[in-house]
Amino acid sequence: MTSTTHTSRVFSLETMDVPGGTETILRGGRHLFPLLPQAFAGVRRIGVLGWGPQGRAQALNLRDSLAGTDITVAVGLRPGSASAADARIHGFTEEDGTLGDWLAVAADSDLVILLIADAALAAHHTEIFAVLKPGAAIGLSHGFLLGHLRETGGDFPPGHPVIAVCPKGMGDSVRRLYRQGAEVNGAGINSSYAVHADPDGRAADLALGWSVALGSPYTFRTTLDSEYRSDIVGERAILLGAVHGIVETLFTRYRLAGDDEVTAYERSCENVTGPIARTISRSGLRAVREGLTPSARDVFDRAYTATYGPAREIVAEIYDEVADGTELRSVILAERRLGARPMSEIGGSPMWSVAERVRARRGTRQLPVDPFTAGVFVATMTAQIDEFADRGHPWSEIVNESVIEAVDSLLPYMHARDVAHMVDNCSRTARLGARRWGPRFQAAYEQIAYPAAEHPADKALLDAFDTHPAHEALAAAAKLRPPVDISVA
Amino acid sequence: MTSTTHTSRVFSLETMDVPGGTETILRGGRHLFPLLPQAFAGVRRIGVLGWGPQGRAQALNLRDSLAGTDITVAVGLRPGSASAADARIHGFTEEDGTLGDWLAVAADSDLVILLIADAALAAHHTEIFAVLKPGAAIGLSHGFLLGHLRETGGDFPPGHPVIAVCPKGMGDSVRRLYRQGAEVNGAGINSSYAVHADPDGRAADLALGWSVALGSPYTFRTTLDSEYRSDIVGERAILLGAVHGIVETLFTRYRLAGDDEVTAYERSCENVTGPIARTISRSGLRAVREGLTPSARDVFDRAYTATYGPAREIVAEIYDEVADGTELRSVILAERRLGARPMSEIGGSPMWSVAERVRARRGTRQLPVDPFTAGVFVATMTAQIDEFADRGHPWSEIVNESVIEAVDSLLPYMHARDVAHMVDNCSRTARLGARRWGPRFQAAYEQIAYPAAEHPADKALLDAFDTHPAHEALAAAAKLRPPVDISVA
Repeated sequence: MTSTTHTSRVFSLETMDVPGGTETILRGGRHLFPLLPQAFAGVRRIGVLGWGPQGRAQALNLRDSLAGTDITVAVGLRPGSASAADARIHGFTEEDGTLGDWLAVAADSDLVILLIADAALAAHHTEIFAVLKPGAAIGLSHGFLLGHLRETGGDFPPGHPVIAVCPKGMGDSVRRLYRQGAEVNGAGINSSYAVHADPDGRAADLALGWSVALGSPYTFRTTLDSEYRSDIVGERAILLGAVHGIVETLFTRYRLAGDDEVTAYERSCENVTGPIARTISRSGLRAVREGLTPSARDVFDRAYTATYGPAREIVAEIYDEVADGTELRSVILAERRLGARPMSEIGGSPMWSVAERVRARRGTRQLPVDPFTAGVFVATMTAQIDEFADRGHPWSEIVNESVIEAVDSLLPYMHARDVAHMVDNCSRTARLGARRWGPRFQAAYEQIAYPAAEHPADKALLDAFDTHPAHEALAAAAKLRPPVDISVA
Repeated sequence: MTSTTHTSRVFSLETMDVPGGTETILRGGRHLFPLLPQAFAGVRRIGVLGWGPQGRAQALNLRDSLAGTDITVAVGLRPGSASAADARIHGFTEEDGTLGDWLAVAADSDLVILLIADAALAAHHTEIFAVLKPGAAIGLSHGFLLGHLRETGGDFPPGHPVIAVCPKGMGDSVRRLYRQGAEVNGAGINSSYAVHADPDGRAADLALGWSVALGSPYTFRTTLDSEYRSDIVGERAILLGAVHGIVETLFTRYRLAGDDEVTAYERSCENVTGPIARTISRSGLRAVREGLTPSARDVFDRAYTATYGPAREIVAEIYDEVADGTELRSVILAERRLGARPMSEIGGSPMWSVAERVRARRGTRQLPVDPFTAGVFVATMTAQIDEFADRGHPWSEIVNESVIEAVDSLLPYMHARDVAHMVDNCSRTARLGARRWGPRFQAAYEQIAYPAAEHPADKALLDAFDTHPAHEALAAAAKLRPPVDISVA
């Protein structure tokens, strides 16, 4: 259980109503930047290790936000990293001391933000910990390392603050929306924050300052353990794994029912990443169903009814395995195995060749929400929400990991690029998880859920959806972010 | 690595040629029954714990084989077991002391054969070990307990022989073929045997005697660890999991290509369990391809080429996770979770409703081998063979776990009942594994393999298949069993 009250000596916290109580959040914005030096008291140098999408976005946002202060941001890369050139293009250079070897940068920083890949973190965290200055803070954007330390019997080095600020979106979006925030104050990607170790009482404000400097419209508190679980489970479920399984099954279903490829794609993948995601983003989950005609609503209801149970079963299984460490072990085994043999790509699947043609038709007409697709998708999303709620996650985390991150960040990205691209190009851990669990949703939906969609809808299940506390939580969270469209190049 | 030589003081062992050398085997048969008292020296009472398909088959076979000796066979059940009535019908009764509480029977036996479900074994093995007579032998037919003890830091109690005799087929077949063996000497299901602990030098002959008494046509040696891995991996791959994934994908593929449901089923599921299984059983793997016309052979070759790589990737992943203990952890988690929420059944999938109509057409014509289906299936089987060979399994084990058990036991059973029935009704551990990994084969084949089947066949891959050492090993094994049809009621 996470504590839902906390104090800050620097920022004014607010309470947000959530089902069953309140949660404390920090509303962000550029007007808070003058407070950053206070929040970062004791930190002269921030070292961002890694120049992947998150590393790059965070280093740039932090440097921009801290411009004019005497806090410098440096980027640390591993020897021979291919990212050095790009970092230099963005103004991090060896000459001015803002680019260097990762251990050297870590040794020189008061806050070290670990944004290297999970596998690298697993392999090298001991070396990095060994070079830290006394009392230097360790920053993470992901709970993976906690899981890894548990599995291997390790721990964070004592005497160092350990904090996490976890943007609820892809690195790309973190940077892009920050820049939109120059025009629209408060544009950005929400973040959670966690204080895992606080030897000197500074940790909370350091984390909050970091989050504000990243441009988070709102920051909510969690624990590293809770973030780890929701994040790793989420990417295997509604954020990526289940989405992939869902669109594959629906594409096949519609083709088998007689649709040509383009229509089948528009009713499945295009529908999820397009009108369904947009409707949820603007108007919440219920609006998807409410926007349907009565007969379409019946199709939604039956699909929802048939899908919810199987979806819940799988999310529960994923959750157990993530919480138990089993999923992490399989990730580590896969990394070892794939060292010798790279992962095959799914981009060649028949579905994706159709994507081009469908993209060409965009804008020529308003694509209606497909009621069956919507019922399946919303049921899966609700199943994840319910499982997280059951397991005691804070509501901010639940709605961010189960809804907002999907409809505001990932699905629009997939809309621009396509789901296969996402699965083949996201973080290694996410990719492995999606490939592992996507097929489980696929098989269960094809073999168990869709055959059951013939049956009448379950009124109790739909009433539970209609009165779900998540709608309230989602609306409260929505109020906290400005209505910007996430533009994707 | 398993030792491939060993000695018996009771039986005459033979050497069988295998790729790269020889393996020592024991050819079985009823003419060996007079030697059983010697092999069982020191054993007056055998306690079979459990009355599932294996428990029942083994108790009955042992009792029949030991009739006329002074060795008794008793069945031990847990309190309140629903199997008591059936055991009594088969002549195991409380009155004559051949039926009782499992701990009481265990306490009274010189050889205790643990044939209760894996979950029960995990939960109760400590109690059972605690009641054993000094020096009583522990018998297993499955390596699960070894894996479990490793995961939980436990061990077998010292001072007791620990042996395994593992029939390579379902309990049903073990009994049925034993009875056929009254007419056709040597009919039965092959078994592997292992000696895990041998404090007094009796263990090997005890195990061989047990195997002979079960009616095994041939018995080959392995280790408990090797048996565990090949068994758990096999059921997740070619024996059950992959078969399910394969037939689902092919059924869908043929439907999408325009086939009606009955034709699609005959080209997929019916083809695998019928003509493909029979051809391999009678004439080996190459015969499947050799029986095709040149143009069909090209279809086979492309399907084989496209499938082999993805199949190998998944089998390797399964193997890593089984060897690492990760798969076992997920089984244990699932057992816990499913205590509250039973597993859904796949028997409602659209494919299975077609099975009835297809079954009605049987016998009206000779169903030809479908070349695409055959290429996919044989590639998957070969991938498993190769992975096991790579990991150092003995050839007898490789061909039994990858070919013989499939074509002589499981696929004929599925032919009679259907694959869904099998998946929904086999051992819990197998069922969980099939549901977990079947979808992986399904997704990989649909998304990666089948799109690649357009491409020309890979000559080197097919040459490797043609010259594969497995054909030799399979032929040597085939010589050792009589040509009986596995009849399924």
